[in-house]
Amino acid sequence: MQTQIEQIPGYTYGQVDPSPVSEADLDLLKQTVLFSDEDVQYLRLAGIILEDQTDAVLDVWYGFVGAHPHLARYFGKNNNLDANYLANVRRRFGKWIMDTCTRAYDQDWLNYQHEIGLRHLVKKNQTDGVDAEPIIHFRYLVAFIVPITATIKPFLASKGHSASKVEKMYAAWFKATTLTVTLWCYPYTKAGTF
Amino acid sequence: MQTQIEQIPGYTYGQVDPSPVSEADLDLLKQTVLFSDEDVQYLRLAGIILEDQTDAVLDVWYGFVGAHPHLARYFGKNNNLDANYLANVRRRFGKWIMDTCTRAYDQDWLNYQHEIGLRHLVKKNQTDGVDAEPIIHFRYLVAFIVPITATIKPFLASKGHSASKVEKMYAAWFKATTLTVTLWCYPYTKAGTF
Repeated sequence: MQTQIEQIPGYTYGQVDPSPVSEADLDLLKQTVLFSDEDVQYLRLAGIILEDQTDAVLDVWYGFVGAHPHLARYFGKNNNLDANYLANVRRRFGKWIMDTCTRAYDQDWLNYQHEIGLRHLVKKNQTDGVDAEPIIHFRYLVAFIVPITATIKPFLASKGHSASKVEKMYAAWFKATTLTVTLWCYPYTKAGTF
Repeated sequence: MQTQIEQIPGYTYGQVDPSPVSEADLDLLKQTVLFSDEDVQYLRLAGIILEDQTDAVLDVWYGFVGAHPHLARYFGKNNNLDANYLANVRRRFGKWIMDTCTRAYDQDWLNYQHEIGLRHLVKKNQTDGVDAEPIIHFRYLVAFIVPITATIKPFLASKGHSASKVEKMYAAWFKATTLTVTLWCYPYTKAGTF
């Protein structure tokens, strides 16, 4: 597992600066998105189901981004997309799916969500050493909650689990996605308003 | 209808400053949340279904807020909640449910979403002339996408529509909620990053 992690370019989970968000803050956020221990269990199940499907999920997401120039443009400059940059981000995005399902939501996890937020704004392009659009605009982080949530259900349902279990995994995924996107937004917010 | 609107304190739809977000921006945002003409139709149906249930929906939402001191506190100061403030916001929130289902998403709609965003931050307390917490923290705007979405399904399902229609109304509501919350966030974002 460690070998696999080290092979993902720029994946530095556990090795980043502290998030300004504490575990106490996270606890209140969890309450706000109705996140319970049951959701943790259903995310674990989702992780088992999604593990060999992450490439297929990413095909859907990247197909969606690729079909929309207003989204694809962030992977390059002047509409010249950087294939290597796309590939690196794709591998980290795949790892994010698994991390979301399997990791403990502790301070290390908070720190890495903050790092992901920074990489959309002030640290964009640094990780991969590319010359692309300088930032991803805020609006698309929040808006992306919908495609990232809505497209996951068929994958959760693809291995014969009951409709009730699929719904519970889907609900847990929706909460987890909203939670992480909220944290990614921190660097975009004016001082004292997060 | 006009009489009813005028009775809602602080409800100034159509009479606010322009949003910095254009209809062209909105079109790209709609594409990002997969919002289609079919969603408009299902929001209209949801509006018919929810019209006589908005008080019951608000009971659920306010029950949720009231049960969580980290959310209820915004309706007052030092945990002294302002009942009149709560009541005014509640009426506007009920109107927002119906506006979300029935209004055209045009420049007037964009302008009012921006006004709602301002009323969570720099214009908080002004509309109702109250002395409460000075801002609502950003994190809870985005996090609230979950309870506002998840709690609506039983109300959509309460009038005998097929499971398939309920799912389509629910999906349209999720997209509309994410769209509006994205717009509400504008005033919180650093210059040039939205």
